Amino acid sequence: MERRIAVLVLSVSLFGGALAGCTGPAPQAAQAPSPALLATQMLAHPPGVGVQPTGQTKVFNLYLHKMTHEVYPGATMQMWGFSLSDDPTTATVPGPELRVQEGDLVVVNFLSTVDGFDHTLHWHGQNVPYHQDGVPYVTQDPIPSGQDYTYSFIANPAGTYWYHCHVDSQHHIDMGMYGALIVEPQDPAQDPPFDREATLFLDEMDRFHLESGQPATGNLPMSGDPFDLAHYAQREAQDIVDRNQVISDKVTGTPLRPTRDWYPVTYAPYIVDRNTFLINGHAFPMTTPVFTPDGGVLRMRIIDAGDEVHSLHLHGHHMLVTHKDGVLLDHPYWADTLLIGPGERYDVYVRGDNPGTWMLHDHMGDNEQNDHIHPGGMMTMLVYDSLKDEVVAHQHGSRAEAAGLNPWQHSGAYLQG
Amino acid sequence: MERRIAVLVLSVSLFGGALAGCTGPAPQAAQAPSPALLATQMLAHPPGVGVQPTGQTKVFNLYLHKMTHEVYPGATMQMWGFSLSDDPTTATVPGPELRVQEGDLVVVNFLSTVDGFDHTLHWHGQNVPYHQDGVPYVTQDPIPSGQDYTYSFIANPAGTYWYHCHVDSQHHIDMGMYGALIVEPQDPAQDPPFDREATLFLDEMDRFHLESGQPATGNLPMSGDPFDLAHYAQREAQDIVDRNQVISDKVTGTPLRPTRDWYPVTYAPYIVDRNTFLINGHAFPMTTPVFTPDGGVLRMRIIDAGDEVHSLHLHGHHMLVTHKDGVLLDHPYWADTLLIGPGERYDVYVRGDNPGTWMLHDHMGDNEQNDHIHPGGMMTMLVYDSLKDEVVAHQHGSRAEAAGLNPWQHSGAYLQG
Amino acid sequence: MERRIAVLVLSVSLFGGALAGCTGPAPQAAQAPSPALLATQMLAHPPGVGVQPTGQTKVFNLYLHKMTHEVYPGATMQMWGFSLSDDPTTATVPGPELRVQEGDLVVVNFLSTVDGFDHTLHWHGQNVPYHQDGVPYVTQDPIPSGQDYTYSFIANPAGTYWYHCHVDSQHHIDMGMYGALIVEPQDPAQDPPFDREATLFLDEMDRFHLESGQPATGNLPMSGDPFDLAHYAQREAQDIVDRNQVISDKVTGTPLRPTRDWYPVTYAPYIVDRNTFLINGHAFPMTTPVFTPDGGVLRMRIIDAGDEVHSLHLHGHHMLVTHKDGVLLDHPYWADTLLIGPGERYDVYVRGDNPGTWMLHDHMGDNEQNDHIHPGGMMTMLVYDSLKDEVVAHQHGSRAEAAGLNPWQHSGAYLQG
Repeated sequence: MERRIAVLVLSVSLFGGALAGCTGPAPQAAQAPSPALLATQMLAHPPGVGVQPTGQTKVFNLYLHKMTHEVYPGATMQMWGFSLSDDPTTATVPGPELRVQEGDLVVVNFLSTVDGFDHTLHWHGQNVPYHQDGVPYVTQDPIPSGQDYTYSFIANPAGTYWYHCHVDSQHHIDMGMYGALIVEPQDPAQDPPFDREATLFLDEMDRFHLESGQPATGNLPMSGDPFDLAHYAQREAQDIVDRNQVISDKVTGTPLRPTRDWYPVTYAPYIVDRNTFLINGHAFPMTTPVFTPDGGVLRMRIIDAGDEVHSLHLHGHHMLVTHKDGVLLDHPYWADTLLIGPGERYDVYVRGDNPGTWMLHDHMGDNEQNDHIHPGGMMTMLVYDSLKDEVVAHQHGSRAEAAGLNPWQHSGAYLQG
Repeated sequence: MERRIAVLVLSVSLFGGALAGCTGPAPQAAQAPSPALLATQMLAHPPGVGVQPTGQTKVFNLYLHKMTHEVYPGATMQMWGFSLSDDPTTATVPGPELRVQEGDLVVVNFLSTVDGFDHTLHWHGQNVPYHQDGVPYVTQDPIPSGQDYTYSFIANPAGTYWYHCHVDSQHHIDMGMYGALIVEPQDPAQDPPFDREATLFLDEMDRFHLESGQPATGNLPMSGDPFDLAHYAQREAQDIVDRNQVISDKVTGTPLRPTRDWYPVTYAPYIVDRNTFLINGHAFPMTTPVFTPDGGVLRMRIIDAGDEVHSLHLHGHHMLVTHKDGVLLDHPYWADTLLIGPGERYDVYVRGDNPGTWMLHDHMGDNEQNDHIHPGGMMTMLVYDSLKDEVVAHQHGSRAEAAGLNPWQHSGAYLQG
Repeated sequence: MERRIAVLVLSVSLFGGALAGCTGPAPQAAQAPSPALLATQMLAHPPGVGVQPTGQTKVFNLYLHKMTHEVYPGATMQMWGFSLSDDPTTATVPGPELRVQEGDLVVVNFLSTVDGFDHTLHWHGQNVPYHQDGVPYVTQDPIPSGQDYTYSFIANPAGTYWYHCHVDSQHHIDMGMYGALIVEPQDPAQDPPFDREATLFLDEMDRFHLESGQPATGNLPMSGDPFDLAHYAQREAQDIVDRNQVISDKVTGTPLRPTRDWYPVTYAPYIVDRNTFLINGHAFPMTTPVFTPDGGVLRMRIIDAGDEVHSLHLHGHHMLVTHKDGVLLDHPYWADTLLIGPGERYDVYVRGDNPGTWMLHDHMGDNEQNDHIHPGGMMTMLVYDSLKDEVVAHQHGSRAEAAGLNPWQHSGAYLQG
């Protein structure tokens, strides 16, 4: 009898030990897996694949409009902004946030009111069927101006994603064609809890490319609206001429800049001098503060919609880096400076344990400028709720600002301490 | 009796619990180690160090030849390519893959047929004895043209590595002097299993530097072959003159660009305008598709052989990042956009669960261009086997392409939905 | 009786299994936490927050002086260097290392002897009260030249941090206003043990901006000392004129470069041509070797004080990456090439198991140059103690160097093997 009990207890104890083994992101092995086995398990369950549809449909009417946009005081740009309304005055850069739940059927009816340019929409990071992927001449024909087009797909994986045009992508994204796609997890406990969230889009552009009558550096100045198709075609034609004349091999005489016929459709040259740096469509001091709850937890979804790497530094706190490209990391890590590249997303969590006004800015000095003048560009502040009234009183457009006071300066708070 | 059994069972159960503890990359502690202890254990066993030699020798005859190379349709460059043969028509950029097993004795007999330039070979990431490290004037004298030189070393660690010249490195690597060195692990189970693999070399260059008769931007145009030594010496002499005359201190009159004698050997100035962006030696649309097994696992070894960071985005899938600089990560992570810097390698695994044609491209807009024209540059596609015939039919050089059809366009597949 | 013993043993065995579960960085749960729970636990204990003060005070008198500084042989720059002494000949770039213990009260008395410029000090990554954070016009008024100012804060978190000016930051950091702040942990066992450590500051600059009489590219040459306030004000006034005249909208005639009044205080334009690349204030071949203990462990604290990303490659070894932004990683990883962005810090550990002289350099070719000439820039060497005498004999200023021998060349060591 004793022996039978002993054997029973032995088996149970080994099994109990195994139950306490390492947690992997995939179904748990009886023992902690080797790195190779861990990778194999993860590959069997890529994020989002096989998600259970919710049975819900979220429909969005997404328009594209021409708009003017003040980037920083005195600097106005002509851009293309998305809107959920056909009223062009509601267009914004970045475009509207589309927020759905993982497993929802997402339906986006797209219509551009900007004459003469084609577009598509790409759902960066989402596992869509390929015919919904938005790549011109590969997965679809581009959508002409004025023509309706509908995208539909089951949202997956969960996390922070974004949508943008994929026709002449660098140019059209610079014009403003991007917005956030936030896919909530089905299980709210999947993400660490937070008290407040903010989405921060990073971007750079050539302000002068987008000014009326002043095309990009390197192209001939042209009069008239650079955004109408006739003007664009004129620049294309001029470029073809230039390409065959400007530089030739000194020995053989053959043109060293070839014609543009390596592909059925190529776009006018786009040579960008990046002199303007944006967070959520504005440059300092016109960036919006990120209001932070005293003693609470702030989640920031950071998206690089530009063409450059950025090195974002937060004063006074370390950030907990929790998600990469929408997916929760098994092993989050602390950082006070976050390096992020074009297309990437990082979610970070910050605990509000140090009340104050804290700079959050690109540590790349070139990018803290408006047209080479500092301060400017990719700079904003985390402002604690307890200091909100002071800072808001000084914000752009306030009487304090009109009186020449620094919009970011505490009225007297920093004299304390 | 019962008590003795009870004590025995107690000990066994605690031990059984410990067996189920965390797996570290190093010998396992009875309990999960603190991060400091984990690091200490890892440092006691750096990757590759102390590997058991296999007793096998792998010998490679590696030649360097001048070659012409079509980067994208109509854009031909003169380059230097490696080959395993003395026949110059077999030279390639990137050079041939050298594949060995960890612990093999690798013997590389190097011979350059390019007149007038010195070279070395460096085995980036490998633990070689320092006299095999290939650093000119530090670990060896450079190897003159036409002279044999043999490198030999025990291959370690396992993983994805690469070889390149280390004389006037930026210039010689731009000329094409690089190739993959794949070191297979001794234990095949060390890596997660995969069904197919592909190596992707990323690179950028100044196409006009390498054109006959047209040296780099900023240098005087010269007639004749820019690759012969007389021409190179002429440019050097001109540069020394320029340096002493062009810019002088306005107040003191002393030259602000010093002579070049801070080191016994310095090289002619190399000022690069990066306007051409390559994957495995070609720019879109001449990049090769990455054929992906439906339902299988693709492993991609990604190597940045250039001078810039790249932000590689794959459509329709998250990639599992498994290896950094050849070494398996304890904790792989998911990414749809991979930031990679010069010299780095990342291995990623992709599960083929979303049939289609999927762009894999640098999200840095400047790099999706051929000489400022989009589309081009650092763009390719993952093409599923089930769609292979359609896409291949349209590839460069096919009749479909001759008929003006987009080489990347499915014949009609994207009209499905 | 047997049943009661069996029950007892059963409970003990399950508990024993749990004791062997995964170690998290925060208080340990009885079972390995899910990633969301792990993040939540970590957020409850951000690094440094709630540290127990040591009761010790560390006082530093920190001066700023003008200085001349030879970056590489023949290339002298005028810079601003910190010192712990009022004797200007003791100023250095980087500035002096401030080394304290976590929980110490740090008191820094700052005084600048450079006429006409304002400054602040920012403690990058430290959890200071916001009025100690050093952001001009946000947390304090800037400190005029010649005026004392005292910062004081409890040092936390532990790790590798740095201090720098935050007035006209890119410009003032380029002038040399940075140094290391090393915060030792209270528990020495918190970090993995090492035998030797070295701090490596990475930086880039425009050497010609800082030459007497030669302002930055793009600005009009001016005579006289560019560092005195009258000259600086002259450049500012000229810029305002330029801005209103140089580029105007071709259609509307309005100036496209606005005036600079979007903020109460803006600084003269600073347009940098980065042509000089430094490790600890010098460019190759004037960089200092990193002497490495044979068979021992070297810890390197790497800090990017510049405006660019760097891709640091070490020959002959993989580095164990242990700390990010001062904080120990739960899961260190191996790398032979480290990508680091402005403001970031990485600590790496290297085991000295491969005696030799090993290059440690930026793999970005542009940065391995002095004014476009290679070799130069961001390159140094790890030199093993056993080879120290040979290499030191050839260092800059030695008779070997005067005889035209390469300062980095082993006298004959590389002929062995």
